[in-house]
Amino acid sequence: MAGNSFGKLFRLTTFGESHGQAIGGVIDGCPAGLKLDLEKIQKELNRRRPGQSAIVTQRKEPDTVEFLSGIFEEQTTGTPIGFIIKNANQKSKDYSHIKDTYRPSHADYTYDEKYGVRDYRGGGRSSARETACRVVAGALAKQILSDIEITAYTASVGEIELQKSHKELDFSVIETNPVRCPDTATAEKMESYIKEIRAEGDTVGGTLQCIIKNVPKGLGEPVFDKLHAELGKAMLSINAVKGFEYGSGFEGTKMKGSQHNDLFNNDGSTRTNLSGGIQGGISNGMNIYFNVAFKPVATIMQNQETINAQGESVEMQGKGRHDPCVVPRAVPIVEAMAALVIADYMLQNKSSKF
Amino acid sequence: MAGNSFGKLFRLTTFGESHGQAIGGVIDGCPAGLKLDLEKIQKELNRRRPGQSAIVTQRKEPDTVEFLSGIFEEQTTGTPIGFIIKNANQKSKDYSHIKDTYRPSHADYTYDEKYGVRDYRGGGRSSARETACRVVAGALAKQILSDIEITAYTASVGEIELQKSHKELDFSVIETNPVRCPDTATAEKMESYIKEIRAEGDTVGGTLQCIIKNVPKGLGEPVFDKLHAELGKAMLSINAVKGFEYGSGFEGTKMKGSQHNDLFNNDGSTRTNLSGGIQGGISNGMNIYFNVAFKPVATIMQNQETINAQGESVEMQGKGRHDPCVVPRAVPIVEAMAALVIADYMLQNKSSKF
Amino acid sequence: MAGNSFGKLFRLTTFGESHGQAIGGVIDGCPAGLKLDLEKIQKELNRRRPGQSAIVTQRKEPDTVEFLSGIFEEQTTGTPIGFIIKNANQKSKDYSHIKDTYRPSHADYTYDEKYGVRDYRGGGRSSARETACRVVAGALAKQILSDIEITAYTASVGEIELQKSHKELDFSVIETNPVRCPDTATAEKMESYIKEIRAEGDTVGGTLQCIIKNVPKGLGEPVFDKLHAELGKAMLSINAVKGFEYGSGFEGTKMKGSQHNDLFNNDGSTRTNLSGGIQGGISNGMNIYFNVAFKPVATIMQNQETINAQGESVEMQGKGRHDPCVVPRAVPIVEAMAALVIADYMLQNKSSKF
Amino acid sequence: MAGNSFGKLFRLTTFGESHGQAIGGVIDGCPAGLKLDLEKIQKELNRRRPGQSAIVTQRKEPDTVEFLSGIFEEQTTGTPIGFIIKNANQKSKDYSHIKDTYRPSHADYTYDEKYGVRDYRGGGRSSARETACRVVAGALAKQILSDIEITAYTASVGEIELQKSHKELDFSVIETNPVRCPDTATAEKMESYIKEIRAEGDTVGGTLQCIIKNVPKGLGEPVFDKLHAELGKAMLSINAVKGFEYGSGFEGTKMKGSQHNDLFNNDGSTRTNLSGGIQGGISNGMNIYFNVAFKPVATIMQNQETINAQGESVEMQGKGRHDPCVVPRAVPIVEAMAALVIADYMLQNKSSKF
Repeated sequence: MAGNSFGKLFRLTTFGESHGQAIGGVIDGCPAGLKLDLEKIQKELNRRRPGQSAIVTQRKEPDTVEFLSGIFEEQTTGTPIGFIIKNANQKSKDYSHIKDTYRPSHADYTYDEKYGVRDYRGGGRSSARETACRVVAGALAKQILSDIEITAYTASVGEIELQKSHKELDFSVIETNPVRCPDTATAEKMESYIKEIRAEGDTVGGTLQCIIKNVPKGLGEPVFDKLHAELGKAMLSINAVKGFEYGSGFEGTKMKGSQHNDLFNNDGSTRTNLSGGIQGGISNGMNIYFNVAFKPVATIMQNQETINAQGESVEMQGKGRHDPCVVPRAVPIVEAMAALVIADYMLQNKSSKF
Repeated sequence: MAGNSFGKLFRLTTFGESHGQAIGGVIDGCPAGLKLDLEKIQKELNRRRPGQSAIVTQRKEPDTVEFLSGIFEEQTTGTPIGFIIKNANQKSKDYSHIKDTYRPSHADYTYDEKYGVRDYRGGGRSSARETACRVVAGALAKQILSDIEITAYTASVGEIELQKSHKELDFSVIETNPVRCPDTATAEKMESYIKEIRAEGDTVGGTLQCIIKNVPKGLGEPVFDKLHAELGKAMLSINAVKGFEYGSGFEGTKMKGSQHNDLFNNDGSTRTNLSGGIQGGISNGMNIYFNVAFKPVATIMQNQETINAQGESVEMQGKGRHDPCVVPRAVPIVEAMAALVIADYMLQNKSSKF
Repeated sequence: MAGNSFGKLFRLTTFGESHGQAIGGVIDGCPAGLKLDLEKIQKELNRRRPGQSAIVTQRKEPDTVEFLSGIFEEQTTGTPIGFIIKNANQKSKDYSHIKDTYRPSHADYTYDEKYGVRDYRGGGRSSARETACRVVAGALAKQILSDIEITAYTASVGEIELQKSHKELDFSVIETNPVRCPDTATAEKMESYIKEIRAEGDTVGGTLQCIIKNVPKGLGEPVFDKLHAELGKAMLSINAVKGFEYGSGFEGTKMKGSQHNDLFNNDGSTRTNLSGGIQGGISNGMNIYFNVAFKPVATIMQNQETINAQGESVEMQGKGRHDPCVVPRAVPIVEAMAALVIADYMLQNKSSKF
Repeated sequence: MAGNSFGKLFRLTTFGESHGQAIGGVIDGCPAGLKLDLEKIQKELNRRRPGQSAIVTQRKEPDTVEFLSGIFEEQTTGTPIGFIIKNANQKSKDYSHIKDTYRPSHADYTYDEKYGVRDYRGGGRSSARETACRVVAGALAKQILSDIEITAYTASVGEIELQKSHKELDFSVIETNPVRCPDTATAEKMESYIKEIRAEGDTVGGTLQCIIKNVPKGLGEPVFDKLHAELGKAMLSINAVKGFEYGSGFEGTKMKGSQHNDLFNNDGSTRTNLSGGIQGGISNGMNIYFNVAFKPVATIMQNQETINAQGESVEMQGKGRHDPCVVPRAVPIVEAMAALVIADYMLQNKSSKF
């Protein structure tokens, strides 16, 4: 129960359905005395916004965050920060055709099984619209993290993969293309492919990579709350995510220990970083990096066979305004969740030794 | 900080270092009135025990669990179940050579950075010995789950992969070979390969697959505590794990929505199960399945360059009794963690609707 | 830190300062399928509202609750219920005289010491205005509790005490007088006394009694989360509360065991109820009753010596619109907190036996 | 459910029944690098031990604590500290006469109602024996608190009350008399009274006072986790406690605001301390003091009418070895719980401002 909160000391609770009056959240545990740049928070939210480019959903949602508490004279006061984002675009009629129908590979069926009732308008609580609240909280968390840099980007769309290692990439390119890929040539291929897929009324999956630089040593809490375990949970809690790996990941399973071990330099840094910046669940000061797998969006613009609440077969028409590929808009969400995890461990870490 | 507990309503807290007097745990929240088969719990623990076959570490630890509370006349009483496993094999001198030395890709360096002090004997708290407590709790959790079947097995060792899909596998074979692979021919290849690796004084990684059958619909708590997010965290909290994917996983990112969507049968089951039994973070009654990536064990029987606490280069000798491949002994650990997750959601689910 | 949430399974998180844009909260864990009477919730809020009678503060706050999520077609959906109450009366200038001044026996000094910054307008987060959110959540919780009746009333104002035992009282009288005392004659005395005190520019304390009827057996979780321990914490978390006792309370300490023991009837009920309906931290089905002590409100309409943030002596003028006695308006708050505690244990209890 | 843990960052989980193999606990979140004086911990446990004087129960329990983890070379390592206390005195036959019988004002009936099963030997989990584990953890917490002094003492036994205010008391006297009262003359009266009561085969209640000196400013977390609210919960969770008040407490309700307000000195200290060292839920640096009410022990050495599990009337014989008054042995328990609360807030406080 009560699964709508994330974090222990820096704690976000979200609420809201895609077509209710507003979505929102409460950030509890943000230390007092932090000068906030509220415009930066809105900018992060804009990176997630629908309609920002030709390859994302064309829904119109201004997504303006309003802070209601916890901030006084642009400074945090140590009290909970409540905020809302009004739902401007509540075209409930758009969803009347699915009121009683279970969309394949959506959460309609499972919500009904679990709760016996559901707000069917646009997916209700199961809509990825909820992640807008995560972006707000994550953007605020980033302002705590000062020197720590969190950068996510699109690493693959369908079969099209970024071929370079993250050391060869130019991160300044990321926000210059709608796919958010740090290699222009690959970005163009991905963009055309997404357009092609959209023209077919179809969708496609992809992967994100995220790199966190300048992480202090000592973050993470053994044994169950290892840093990568919490990062993994954070990522897997994002809509459409199917997998998470960090450091050498699944590929590392094929290696031998003698190849995989990261030998030390005398200053405690390591020559290689197959560990992905985390050893024994605790950051070692090297870059943290991980991959996140997103499945293809379940809502397609093609007709599909499905069933209704009575178990009868019905045909579901493909219509509406949806993302052909969720990955570009997921970039700020992944960064936000990473920021929440790191901020929480920063606070936790203050009490681990005298 | 308090990172030594797992679960909300069915909650395990563990304690203990590899070479202290004992390791142990407390299981809080187990409902009253459960008839326990204590022998079954010990049997699960034996599946994890060192020395059980020629391809695992030859350390001798009897690993006998002693229950101290919460059970009366072989029945749970609803009060916390405390247990200990005495450490029979406390050869501290074995570890004097690493007292001041950081083993590469171990947790020695990060523990020292985080805590400023560490029990260096055998890895202390960072040793996988802690997972014995998880197996005890998981074995107990399994007895709550009655019809639900949780089966893990070795799916790859290094480059050697199980080629069959899990539907074609014969689970009755798993415990008949030391690798715990459900295909005898592949098991033999894996076994020889592990022996070869050991002869080189090296180690190798691998992957586990786990399948959970007969899961009731409705388990999992949106939005942050999605069923697969918690499973992911559980698996990533196991020593040496580098990745987690469920359902179609990383491969699924290459698919189109029209291929990936699981169409319904009229009874609510689905024709395909790329969703992996979970939709919107909630179980849909189909089989849950996931993969877990284990890196090669960092302790190798070869000399390695490393540094000591003073940042001086030292040579570390490869000696001791360690696993050449951790995957076979990880099978009961993965099952235990899965059982803890499912048991917790079973209890949580009781309060989700009227 | 995260001290703005209450409850485990039925969990309220509140936010907001007295003179911010809005206060509000999130109720997480309310089961799905509860038909809500939203008007009843507003009515409870009206019982707490300023300006409701001649003996409470004459501030004007309409205090209208707006639900933003978690309710669909007047039914709970199992998703978090977000709500806000807009602050209509944000006369910040009223508070400019205390911007830099610490009001005696208020939280001004301690907030500054703790956080180094504070929203000084009307007490900010430390204002009892926050309790409006508790009343909303408690009123909603009451609708879960169906047959359980929670009744609080004023038991003393200064030295004027209700002389009758709670069995002799007429609860139907409570809402007919502004003091909320179940005995008309005593209520009148209290009312005149409060008016007298107010004329002096002073304030006075008092006590509340609360009785909970029809509580199911078995609520409460040993050993730390005993039912009365959580009730005590709930009450002590209300502004101005200085003490809590249940059952025989402080008076019971003077008794002998042979007098104090509640002997059983054959049906398991007890002949006396000095236990106050709770034994070993678990409800036994008898009425639960407890007393709550409220200190006199610290804001008085008299000039007081005090200090400013620089440690200089300053005179503070007594002005503004405040309650001469907080007890009458605290009645719905005490009921709300009791309802939150009981609702939470109702949900917790579902998982205690098979 | 999980009611066997206390604290957020400094967190104690206890387990064990009065007549099981052992009781014990896990302290999670103790910072690393604390030099421990283990003998001091055992000494605190001895203050709670049965048989320590003529006026307490004559049961023989050596109560020796054994630490199993988290301490290396007499220093905390930051990992969980597991400990056990073996039950030396498991005369189960002593309790066969109550196997099926509900002792009046005990937890027998409610445990059976809640769990449907119970370990009837000596009260099982509901026995105050569990508090020995709290004393261990509290004694360890005290070693974190360095300068902070926590002193509890007996303030009343039945009608016999300590007449002096706590400023006039000589704390050095407390441990010189078996009642633990800081006034020798009153202590003697109390002692004779307890002996008299015991001779009658009866028991009597009493109150404890506790004073905490040198508390840093800023401890406590608004709004629900106010410092006094958590102290109240801590005290109310101790067996036999019926009430808690701090500062002016119940008496303060009779005062006027103009009398009750604590005026400031220029250094931020206050001239009076009716606030009890806590304002708005946060410590202000003044002494914290509170009273705790203990009911008379329910086990009396007189025959009592009662019922069995079948609802039949039975006579229960008064026999066994029990405390005629629980207050003297409760002194170290109250101190321990206070230490746990303060230590937890010390850790929490580290993250409240930049």
